[in-house]
Amino acid sequence: MTVTRTLRLKKHADRRLKAGHLWLYSNEIDIEATPLKDIEAGEQAVVEAAGGKALGVAYVNPHSLICARMVSRDPKQGLDRSLLVHRLNQALSLRQRLFARPFYRLVHGEGDLLPGLVIDRYDEVLVVQLNTAGMQTVVNELLDALDKVLSPQVVVLRNDTGGRRQEGLELGVEVVKGELPERVLLEENGVRFAAPVLDGQKTGWFYDHRVNRAWLNGLVAGKRVLDLFSYVGGWGVQAAANGASEVLCVDASGPALERVAENAALNGLHEQVAVGEGDAFEALAALKDDGEQFDVVILDPPAFIKKRKDIPAGERAYGKLNREAMRLLGRDGLLLSASCSMHLAPERLVDVVRGAVRHQDRQGQILFQGHQGPDHPVHPAIPETSYLKALGIRVFRD
Amino acid sequence: MTVTRTLRLKKHADRRLKAGHLWLYSNEIDIEATPLKDIEAGEQAVVEAAGGKALGVAYVNPHSLICARMVSRDPKQGLDRSLLVHRLNQALSLRQRLFARPFYRLVHGEGDLLPGLVIDRYDEVLVVQLNTAGMQTVVNELLDALDKVLSPQVVVLRNDTGGRRQEGLELGVEVVKGELPERVLLEENGVRFAAPVLDGQKTGWFYDHRVNRAWLNGLVAGKRVLDLFSYVGGWGVQAAANGASEVLCVDASGPALERVAENAALNGLHEQVAVGEGDAFEALAALKDDGEQFDVVILDPPAFIKKRKDIPAGERAYGKLNREAMRLLGRDGLLLSASCSMHLAPERLVDVVRGAVRHQDRQGQILFQGHQGPDHPVHPAIPETSYLKALGIRVFRD
Repeated sequence: MTVTRTLRLKKHADRRLKAGHLWLYSNEIDIEATPLKDIEAGEQAVVEAAGGKALGVAYVNPHSLICARMVSRDPKQGLDRSLLVHRLNQALSLRQRLFARPFYRLVHGEGDLLPGLVIDRYDEVLVVQLNTAGMQTVVNELLDALDKVLSPQVVVLRNDTGGRRQEGLELGVEVVKGELPERVLLEENGVRFAAPVLDGQKTGWFYDHRVNRAWLNGLVAGKRVLDLFSYVGGWGVQAAANGASEVLCVDASGPALERVAENAALNGLHEQVAVGEGDAFEALAALKDDGEQFDVVILDPPAFIKKRKDIPAGERAYGKLNREAMRLLGRDGLLLSASCSMHLAPERLVDVVRGAVRHQDRQGQILFQGHQGPDHPVHPAIPETSYLKALGIRVFRD
Repeated sequence: MTVTRTLRLKKHADRRLKAGHLWLYSNEIDIEATPLKDIEAGEQAVVEAAGGKALGVAYVNPHSLICARMVSRDPKQGLDRSLLVHRLNQALSLRQRLFARPFYRLVHGEGDLLPGLVIDRYDEVLVVQLNTAGMQTVVNELLDALDKVLSPQVVVLRNDTGGRRQEGLELGVEVVKGELPERVLLEENGVRFAAPVLDGQKTGWFYDHRVNRAWLNGLVAGKRVLDLFSYVGGWGVQAAANGASEVLCVDASGPALERVAENAALNGLHEQVAVGEGDAFEALAALKDDGEQFDVVILDPPAFIKKRKDIPAGERAYGKLNREAMRLLGRDGLLLSASCSMHLAPERLVDVVRGAVRHQDRQGQILFQGHQGPDHPVHPAIPETSYLKALGIRVFRD
């Protein structure tokens, strides 16, 4: 596809792109030369440096702070069906090298050079999120390209994301191809789950913690485990499958906990896995009051820091959570403390844990520093694509 | 053991200790109240805050920039045989939970609350490094404690470290218990090796990359692999054992390469593993001239940054190495890029890789962000204890 519209950058505003980044901010555009307001949300444009040199093609959203995202370094190649097929094949070949079974994130947005696009694969079921106007505009080309590359039986659009709201797009969930089976199954680290792809969180499942769960799975045999913010039991049911003697999954959502029970039953583990409904902090206090102790506590909360301005309050919340959770550990316990907040730097999570250890007058050893799995590739020029942290900490009394 | 000598801190100099850190710098001591020069290297002292409150016990070296390291938070408990037994038991119980086989770092200095002490275990052979005057002073108590906790058949002191030189200690290597077998064997990720514990690098083996090698092992089947700075073949021989079709190990040390060949033979892999002696940069240039290509390149260089002042030159060296190595990758290759320089922050290694990818006008996806294995625990208050980085990057032409 040839793109005719252009977007001219201000002087020096090409530096980030030259370093490999894919984003342009609205204050970097020379709007006298190429007025942003003349471009419709989702349109593509050839990006030019201040001197006129063409740098590639981006799709544009004049209403968004990130006003353009690069889709190609070739000024003659826009984002069309053929480029989508090429990128999807690149993404698929990576996952096929990484995984023996067809359960993974197939496309991780910028990390797969497909800004704004997320696709999770549950074998024959694909769950797609189009998070930008640029991706929404090529939805038909994308569905065509998916047919060519994978011919999935079912495609679901989970277009109910916060990102879409910011881009001024309509929200909705739709099965656009095939018929959704009663249960959408997946396997992770050898354990089976059903994912609520229509009404669960995000696409229904969090593949990003696969490697971190695999690490913890090796250390839970015979242990009493608390899984806080359990959602549908990704951590807790895997712990039970790996020999944990007893697992308590706590979540604020009743429907999520019903799914924990289903997922436990799916693996013949209903006797090992109990559930408790409630707010995490209240649950921690109640468990402490009841004198409960655990060998392993898993903290995988939702993002406490969604925007930069939330950092101080968010860090305090992570601090409180980690302190309260540590109180439930026995003399020599293991804490798995995760954060999916991109704005919380890895060393800040270490500091949260350090503070909690000191507050309890215990000692801590960080045994594991985990990140998102390899089906969530990090773009080396875009720090924002590296968001997930998981620390494994031995907490003991000296 | 009761400690009678005291070390008084200046005002506010107790902050780091209260945060959990174990080090004191000489400019933090109130030398009018407690002259450092009156204390002998290796002596222990009760550390007091400026107000006189006892904070614990440290061992002291007045000649070192880090003039004292905390060994206990109990002012009544110095570092003696009984505390050593307690700490060794804590360290051992962790490793026994982590590993089925007796091959691991048993003590990782500050990370195991035993500052200045490193012990690597090769089943019945322990290789010990006493890196500070404080640890040297308790060597007899330590050997006693090791007998009580593990009764090893052989104990080797590898006291030829740079750390000892800085502490003003004598250098030397000595078998202080038992008789060293002709070959000291170990197993890592299911592959067998002999470690040159008397004259190899460090203690003879680098257990710290175990988890990073395990990750790479899953992606090398059928691949052509280059292992630069191979040392005795930790990466390369494991790659061959995991199905790599061909492995070339390059190192500047002839004796190390002889051991690569031995280790390959030990696993019946001598046909898959070739060796090349030479400087890494020269080898990269020669391989490029010869038109050689690899599917996987492993870069595990020695620390290019030993001191803070070496950071700019060191980063340039990492940059050059990664650029040159990337040129040898085929159209869709995998680079494993490691750094053991504590002074190179993880995000700086990402930037090195980003720069190399851009320089070659390729695309990169960071699939893996690895750190030191769990037998090298990080002390959450001491960033210096987290030193190892390993990035797994898919490098491809778009």
